[in-house]
Amino acid sequence: MTSGHAVVLRSYPEGLPRATDFEWVPETTSEPGDGQALLRILWASIDPAMRTWHSAKPGRGVVRPLGTVMKAVAVAEVVESRNSLRVGDHVVGSFGMREWCISDGADVTRVLDAGIEPRLGLGTLGHIGLTAFAGLHKVARAQAGETVLVSSAAGATGALAGQIAAAAGCRVIGIAGGPDKAAICRTEYGFDICIDRHAETDLVGAIRAAAPEGIDVFFDNVGGPTLDAAMQNMNALGRVAICGTISVRSSEPGHGPRHERLMLDKQLTVQGFLTSQFEVDYPEMLESLSLLHSEGRLHLREVVVEGAENAPLALEQLLAGEFAGKVLVRIAA
Amino acid sequence: MTSGHAVVLRSYPEGLPRATDFEWVPETTSEPGDGQALLRILWASIDPAMRTWHSAKPGRGVVRPLGTVMKAVAVAEVVESRNSLRVGDHVVGSFGMREWCISDGADVTRVLDAGIEPRLGLGTLGHIGLTAFAGLHKVARAQAGETVLVSSAAGATGALAGQIAAAAGCRVIGIAGGPDKAAICRTEYGFDICIDRHAETDLVGAIRAAAPEGIDVFFDNVGGPTLDAAMQNMNALGRVAICGTISVRSSEPGHGPRHERLMLDKQLTVQGFLTSQFEVDYPEMLESLSLLHSEGRLHLREVVVEGAENAPLALEQLLAGEFAGKVLVRIAA
Repeated sequence: MTSGHAVVLRSYPEGLPRATDFEWVPETTSEPGDGQALLRILWASIDPAMRTWHSAKPGRGVVRPLGTVMKAVAVAEVVESRNSLRVGDHVVGSFGMREWCISDGADVTRVLDAGIEPRLGLGTLGHIGLTAFAGLHKVARAQAGETVLVSSAAGATGALAGQIAAAAGCRVIGIAGGPDKAAICRTEYGFDICIDRHAETDLVGAIRAAAPEGIDVFFDNVGGPTLDAAMQNMNALGRVAICGTISVRSSEPGHGPRHERLMLDKQLTVQGFLTSQFEVDYPEMLESLSLLHSEGRLHLREVVVEGAENAPLALEQLLAGEFAGKVLVRIAA
Repeated sequence: MTSGHAVVLRSYPEGLPRATDFEWVPETTSEPGDGQALLRILWASIDPAMRTWHSAKPGRGVVRPLGTVMKAVAVAEVVESRNSLRVGDHVVGSFGMREWCISDGADVTRVLDAGIEPRLGLGTLGHIGLTAFAGLHKVARAQAGETVLVSSAAGATGALAGQIAAAAGCRVIGIAGGPDKAAICRTEYGFDICIDRHAETDLVGAIRAAAPEGIDVFFDNVGGPTLDAAMQNMNALGRVAICGTISVRSSEPGHGPRHERLMLDKQLTVQGFLTSQFEVDYPEMLESLSLLHSEGRLHLREVVVEGAENAPLALEQLLAGEFAGKVLVRIAA
């Protein structure tokens, strides 16, 4: 028996999740049985997708009952093992926002190679890096010399997408919320240009000014009016990878300009993707990411939140656009 | 000098083209000079895309001056030649809605194999067949066992797309305007089901009833509310090929429900395509089409309009949904 705590879902969010939709409660973890291992969570990740995971009407169909542990990707250390996991290994999986858990191994997506900083397994060398890489290379098939636009460019996924695009020989333009984030994209992440969308009343014109030759690839984390403005600037045969839609309500997406006529005239491809659809390619993509990381080409700001009890507030703040970079919860690291 | 007639553009259409936007005028064709050939037009094609070709604000950027000959795909016989075209050959190209023309060969997209009925070069074994094939196989990558939905199913492209899908082992559902067209799709074109959209107030529900297991591929010729209804029924990893958007105004596409959230949750791909982007694949696609045609698997109703002078009215009627099948203008056949 191990005594710890967990964050549980107390009420379904109306719109975006609020800290008050969750509660920090004691949780007792039993001894691992046959085929099980006891994991101590070191770090957990705060991701925009968590709003979907905790909705009463999630588009992907899985409704989590009230009282269940907040779903979160985490990295953990194997403390005791009665299965193939080795004590001392660092493993990544959807272990939830808690201090301890029992794993049968099926929830482990990856064992980190020795020497990898555990928290990198939640960012550059984890699901964030994989998402950025998959969207840019597998979905949008960005080519050297093309112009790539990235929305929510100071967010973890956007920042990596921009740097992966630059490393592939693309010209990279970001859209970020506020002058500080735009400056970070230019100076720390090496975007050629970053538009501060709070300072622009005409986003269509701002993108056109930044890319007079048009956009070939749009890596979108936002949707809504940002997507509409980008669509007006796409070049013929352009590709849009929809990675996130933070500006669009899940249950009531609302209305916007029709794009089908433009998509026909310009021969555009718009594709929504989840990183999991490229699971078979993870080893190859991680190899590429590791190489870029070792070359110092992938930089990512980290915001460290201390303690899982502060995760619900951190999610609320992330969704409000208050952070720049990868938001990590330190639990036992 | 050869005396003939041509249809010329007299006024830019407001909305869809009307017969009165064109005029039938005498046209004198000079003798072919060095590198030129004299062509007698046998058949010309009436296509929905002609509305775009004659717009004052075409999405694809080419504005035809008033007074120019109506753009049309046609099949012609080579009557005199001072270039590599051989007298007696049947050639396909954008020769325009006229009786005679001079060709330098650059406007010839294809010389028909001996023995091919000339008018087939404008339909099943021409740009219509290529469009249906490319949309289904190159864009949407339909697989055996999948469910394919086709809009404007009684139109030439839709009818062929449905039959090509059926030949590939797909279950095929059509949407057509009116009971007669729906019946033609079922009995002549072999669609498993065809929805009469005029008889349905709830198109989302009608598609769901026809495909309770969901839609994998949507071949869309219509856009607008038809596209919206199909989107609500797409399966995860579904593909939408946008071939036409007849229900959407070119210059003012209007507003509709946002699809980006749905596209992300369902991992959908929506792609607008022009057949010309697959030009390198034409020989391979024509071989497949010829084989299917020779096996009797591609049937296409023809509506024959007598005389190029009647082409403008035929275009107006086509765009009003008055025809089922391939609309051909007989000029000198």
